[in-house]
Amino acid sequence: MNNDSSISKYTKTSSDLGTKVEKLPTPSLLLDIEIVRSNYASIAKKYKNTACKMRQHGKNLKTPKLALMQIEAGGTVNGICSAKVSEAEVMVSGGIKDILITNQIVTPDKIKRMCKLSKLADIKVCVDNLENVRLISEIASTLDTTIGILIEIETNMKRAGVRTIEYAINIVKLIDTLPNIQFRGIMSHQALYKYQGEKHRKDTAKNTISKCLEFKKAIESEGFPIEIVSSGETFTYDVSPKMPGVTEVEGGTYALMGTVYSFLKDFEVANKLLTTIINKPDPQTIVCDIGYLSMPRAGDELLQIENLPNVKFQDMYKYHTVFTSSSEIPINIGAKVKLIPNYQDPLIDSWDEFFIIENDILIEILPITGRGTFH
Amino acid sequence: MNNDSSISKYTKTSSDLGTKVEKLPTPSLLLDIEIVRSNYASIAKKYKNTACKMRQHGKNLKTPKLALMQIEAGGTVNGICSAKVSEAEVMVSGGIKDILITNQIVTPDKIKRMCKLSKLADIKVCVDNLENVRLISEIASTLDTTIGILIEIETNMKRAGVRTIEYAINIVKLIDTLPNIQFRGIMSHQALYKYQGEKHRKDTAKNTISKCLEFKKAIESEGFPIEIVSSGETFTYDVSPKMPGVTEVEGGTYALMGTVYSFLKDFEVANKLLTTIINKPDPQTIVCDIGYLSMPRAGDELLQIENLPNVKFQDMYKYHTVFTSSSEIPINIGAKVKLIPNYQDPLIDSWDEFFIIENDILIEILPITGRGTFH
Repeated sequence: MNNDSSISKYTKTSSDLGTKVEKLPTPSLLLDIEIVRSNYASIAKKYKNTACKMRQHGKNLKTPKLALMQIEAGGTVNGICSAKVSEAEVMVSGGIKDILITNQIVTPDKIKRMCKLSKLADIKVCVDNLENVRLISEIASTLDTTIGILIEIETNMKRAGVRTIEYAINIVKLIDTLPNIQFRGIMSHQALYKYQGEKHRKDTAKNTISKCLEFKKAIESEGFPIEIVSSGETFTYDVSPKMPGVTEVEGGTYALMGTVYSFLKDFEVANKLLTTIINKPDPQTIVCDIGYLSMPRAGDELLQIENLPNVKFQDMYKYHTVFTSSSEIPINIGAKVKLIPNYQDPLIDSWDEFFIIENDILIEILPITGRGTFH
Repeated sequence: MNNDSSISKYTKTSSDLGTKVEKLPTPSLLLDIEIVRSNYASIAKKYKNTACKMRQHGKNLKTPKLALMQIEAGGTVNGICSAKVSEAEVMVSGGIKDILITNQIVTPDKIKRMCKLSKLADIKVCVDNLENVRLISEIASTLDTTIGILIEIETNMKRAGVRTIEYAINIVKLIDTLPNIQFRGIMSHQALYKYQGEKHRKDTAKNTISKCLEFKKAIESEGFPIEIVSSGETFTYDVSPKMPGVTEVEGGTYALMGTVYSFLKDFEVANKLLTTIINKPDPQTIVCDIGYLSMPRAGDELLQIENLPNVKFQDMYKYHTVFTSSSEIPINIGAKVKLIPNYQDPLIDSWDEFFIIENDILIEILPITGRGTFH
């Protein structure tokens, strides 16, 4: 009785490779691999002849295989970002050799794990605090390894990152005196809180990255050369390469995309949700078999149904999403539709696997091995 | 290189049984098993001598073991609710013998899976549509099994459920004529959209359940006896037993609880998040190593830090939560605190395992086997 042994979560009633998309069980997370290749080709082309390269963010993909695809396509530093040690572990185990952890790792248990990882790959971590630098040096010494250090600079997130040039220089000087850590550069990450046109986007990009570059100048004038200036995000992918001094961009969203970044015309949405209509209480209302458990943070006007532009998001529950239209909706109970998500990070992190689709045929079931790597 | 083989997501640096809570890796989902027992005892006591019993909702727990604990403690129908066939599969595989699927199952692949499951347990499903009834009967006949049918009644969710008594009676008459399905009763589920005092809560409970009972009366007056009236939710747990005719309550939230239902004094919050302070940019601001990926839909004023009532939620990102206070916060970088979540359903569904805690000691790592059972 008291037995939790699991059965397969994904009973493969209709999930054999070669199955047509309309025969797949729902809800499902689909990934159109041709669109991913096209998005990756856009980056490879954009960064082919620039000093600045892409360092793709692994948190948007959670799968080493998809990260390696961009490295193989080109335009990158041959490495990626990871948000956490646990994510980095998954990525190194999947073949990534160069990782920037874009966060602070402050507890001894995680610093130890990071040090162990540094024997398998080039590991760099962001710091914003003197005590943290001392602890990393101490543990790295004990474990006989070297950790690359970048200083995180606060530019617009009001979250982590040093706030003053003076404090940043104090950190660099401390790094210089301590063993088993190496100063590699600086990092800042930005958000575009709401797109208000191309001028607003480019101004936000320039202003925030310029703030980061001021720190570069000040640190170098103290005699500490900077190898890496890691700054920017998908929304600055075309601005960063034009700002001398930026060596890499931490782009994530561009790979799979969502409607929230639809103003970027070089990229298309690759990740979609296949869902079944399970209720049609009246001709202008449909209810889908997907809700916020498997489509988190999608509950707003940016969620769209493919090929049904006049059907609008109405409401979302745990297992249901309601759409309405001002006219009769031309689909019935049992029909399947694809939803176009607004944003992929939390979406990907709720799924255990991608259904990889090519020409609307299932060609691979790809485990999302970085999902749920919370601690 | 191109290898996605996973390593353990939960590197057990400090997760041996017997570890003290403050030594566990963060963020972690803790479950205080004494509080669960106490919440279960409250239900067992409340429903000991009532005709109405609890049918606990499995979607709030996602683990058969925790569902079986309530059945063993008492006060229940000896069965549970599941939101989906996939959830029901996990629950049956974990030893549950009586399941009400509180949703419509409309596609042939899932109806087939439900029929297979009905050979292992007493399976009932909710319908609100004539076509769906025909399809279930047809497939159940082919697979030589019988499915119990409840008619879902719309009472306040404006989602699924029949809207008129006339249509409900049409469905009952159809069920009566078709093979391999059996009319068992009616079901309605309600939400309390915002707690506005005890009178508002009890009025909402009575009004919505009364609407369901009107359908019961009308269907019975047509000569169709009703075995099950499944209605209500945690917020009606004390109202439903006083309404003659209601046979069971679909309570979920009470088991693990959250601050959103803190007005219910019979239950305490059993699920908490252990997190580390990773930044303290100024004395009145702290940043924790948990964000909305592992604590979805918690980003509002109801998220609290245990024992620090004056520290208030400020903002949430994917991997970070910021709290502020009007005075200096008496904890530093590296310290661990417990967060009290507002609501547990989406939270539980983002985690692969509970750290079961008793007297602040890890006594079990319990896999959340129903997590991610989306299709």
